[in-house]
Amino acid sequence: MKKNIIVGQSGGPTAVINASLYGVIAEGKRHGDEIGCVYGMLNGIEGFMQDRYMNLSQELTDEELEILKLTPAAYLGSCRYKLPEDLSSGFYPMIFQKLKQMNIGYFFYIGGNDSMDTVSKLSRYGASTGSDIRFIGIPKTVDNDLVGTDHTPGYASAARYVAASVREIVLDASVYQQKAVTIVEIMGRHAGWLTAAAALARKEAGDNPLLIYLPEYDFDLEQFAQDVKAALDRQPSVVVCVSEGISDRDGKFICEYDNAAQTDSFGHKMLTGSGKVLEAFIRNRYGVKVRSVELNVSQRCSGMLASAADVSEAARAGEAGVKAALRGETGKMIAFLRKDSPVYELEYVPQDVNAICNKEKKFPAEWITDHGRDVSGEFLAYALPLIQGEVERKMENGLPVYLYQRDGRPVRG
Amino acid sequence: MKKNIIVGQSGGPTAVINASLYGVIAEGKRHGDEIGCVYGMLNGIEGFMQDRYMNLSQELTDEELEILKLTPAAYLGSCRYKLPEDLSSGFYPMIFQKLKQMNIGYFFYIGGNDSMDTVSKLSRYGASTGSDIRFIGIPKTVDNDLVGTDHTPGYASAARYVAASVREIVLDASVYQQKAVTIVEIMGRHAGWLTAAAALARKEAGDNPLLIYLPEYDFDLEQFAQDVKAALDRQPSVVVCVSEGISDRDGKFICEYDNAAQTDSFGHKMLTGSGKVLEAFIRNRYGVKVRSVELNVSQRCSGMLASAADVSEAARAGEAGVKAALRGETGKMIAFLRKDSPVYELEYVPQDVNAICNKEKKFPAEWITDHGRDVSGEFLAYALPLIQGEVERKMENGLPVYLYQRDGRPVRG
Repeated sequence: MKKNIIVGQSGGPTAVINASLYGVIAEGKRHGDEIGCVYGMLNGIEGFMQDRYMNLSQELTDEELEILKLTPAAYLGSCRYKLPEDLSSGFYPMIFQKLKQMNIGYFFYIGGNDSMDTVSKLSRYGASTGSDIRFIGIPKTVDNDLVGTDHTPGYASAARYVAASVREIVLDASVYQQKAVTIVEIMGRHAGWLTAAAALARKEAGDNPLLIYLPEYDFDLEQFAQDVKAALDRQPSVVVCVSEGISDRDGKFICEYDNAAQTDSFGHKMLTGSGKVLEAFIRNRYGVKVRSVELNVSQRCSGMLASAADVSEAARAGEAGVKAALRGETGKMIAFLRKDSPVYELEYVPQDVNAICNKEKKFPAEWITDHGRDVSGEFLAYALPLIQGEVERKMENGLPVYLYQRDGRPVRG
Repeated sequence: MKKNIIVGQSGGPTAVINASLYGVIAEGKRHGDEIGCVYGMLNGIEGFMQDRYMNLSQELTDEELEILKLTPAAYLGSCRYKLPEDLSSGFYPMIFQKLKQMNIGYFFYIGGNDSMDTVSKLSRYGASTGSDIRFIGIPKTVDNDLVGTDHTPGYASAARYVAASVREIVLDASVYQQKAVTIVEIMGRHAGWLTAAAALARKEAGDNPLLIYLPEYDFDLEQFAQDVKAALDRQPSVVVCVSEGISDRDGKFICEYDNAAQTDSFGHKMLTGSGKVLEAFIRNRYGVKVRSVELNVSQRCSGMLASAADVSEAARAGEAGVKAALRGETGKMIAFLRKDSPVYELEYVPQDVNAICNKEKKFPAEWITDHGRDVSGEFLAYALPLIQGEVERKMENGLPVYLYQRDGRPVRG
């Protein structure tokens, strides 16, 4: 008997999480002999518990599927929901009852660390009850911090956004003769992968951004002041890139250096980033013009700057997930294995999801150079193939056409 | 006898100020019978006073010229330098002496309000001394606040960046079920043109961004709280766009509502934007999740999202400037006149620069709707033709190739 697919998205949005969704739907459709239809849970497992889902094979036309592939954020909606640690919790029978009612044979969850934890728990519970439902994780995170995979879908497009934006900010910052410091704050609470991508912005060696600081290296404010001074002595415009999550040797985040008493005129606490803190610090120390720029959410949701390589890899990860499930795999995440070949090439390999979830892949210490102020050529060689290619997208009125969903129905605009 | 051209850039960078520079150089080259060479002053009139310039006709190859056309920021460097009000100042004979030495017959200055003031003063001084040098201004500003022209080069690309980014931020902000407010702060200290462009992001009527506030309408914090509350009652994800320069009925900027005592742990004053102030205000008032996003300098310097229409119009403004000068015009700015035709079409018309400089074109009051919370369909009809088209650019290693200048020599990267 044919079984159905259900697929969900979870955690923070990326430029290509919908490309993975596209991959699952497209591959599911190609196996009409084994697969009935493809359901999508709305707002992940949290929405599914509220019986919120849609029939993706029925609702989406082929043209809409192609638009979906290039739409950023999360078409099905997302959630941040941690499943109970205790597998004897009543939660599990309830979920499996729902899956059974919908005749689900294949469960796909597209997400990061926490989402892989969901796949791990569901597959372990399933195994303990003899369920034949197959649970597969499709990786996704702009942070690139999942272990067991060369990189994660979503990282490359975010890295390309960072590199292109920093290159343009450097040009913008260099138009005046006056001394000026520009501090760019880049996403990454614990891992420096995205901030490191700022090095790709350099047009030549020794070019801005002159200084790059990652969370993996203890940040020292006095050393930073000296670094900026030395850079200003060399040239008038200094661009610095910092992770949001840089912290000192005591583990205190630099963004926490703002005064706890910092309030607006109503006494409201204001939240500050590491860039803002360093902006005020350098302005006061040296009296030079300082500006800070927080790249913010556009880093993760810019579809316009998505890397074609990333879109294609994300879609293939979804397809590989369906193929693996049909082969009988369960409790796996589709990992990227970079082949040892002269030309960049990936293999899509199912790996034990239990060995992946709840772990964090840090930026390698040996790729941090110049006493924590730069990254190595090895990183550039690692990252360059990932950011290649521009996608060709449907435009209307000068803007990209995206596909979004309202109450389980596709809307184009 | 052939005369030379000198051209400079001044004020803040835009995505297309180099397209205007391209237009001046390309048109200058086409008139080899009348024009010797095209010089570029480095860092505007300020650098020129220090004898810093380059020979653009000699240094740039045709291929480099094409890259220059699509490079954001200001290739020649910029300055913020106000010429003496007193035309009998010793400054003027000094400048004219330099122009004479270089056999300059045509002076072009690409910039905004202050730059047109420079053109005005130089042309008036020239007229008073019987000089035959022709002074022409080429408009440029993302703020779109120059009078006497339908719009200004640079505005359209920034507007497209705002519209595309807000559309993506709306998608990003809509993935969770929980109530959340996202506040996007957009450039514009006194004019709301750029913030209004956020309305172009809507995929359909009634779509996010639900609320749009411009500096031209008195901002009331209590009304704002009620507006947000009503929007949250309607749907979980509310996206609000505000100009950096919104102010209350007393003329006080909302960004000044942050506490004067707001300092970091070293006692340094921290600078805050209107978005951050409203973020803290709404979070405290309603206890919902609030995020603020400052689009920051990428608005004005993103070459990747430049509008093809803007690039082409900026280049044609430069060309029209050269043609006007050759016809004998001086003391003029090249204005855009939108033809009264069913299809969008522009005329490039020299207008008296004295009637343009030191004035500010506000966003029309009649285009502000819904008691200061939205903009009208008339604005959308005005803005839509401007943001059309994507440029085809040279890419290398997944990133755009730009042309920049070091010590008066072109460098590609």
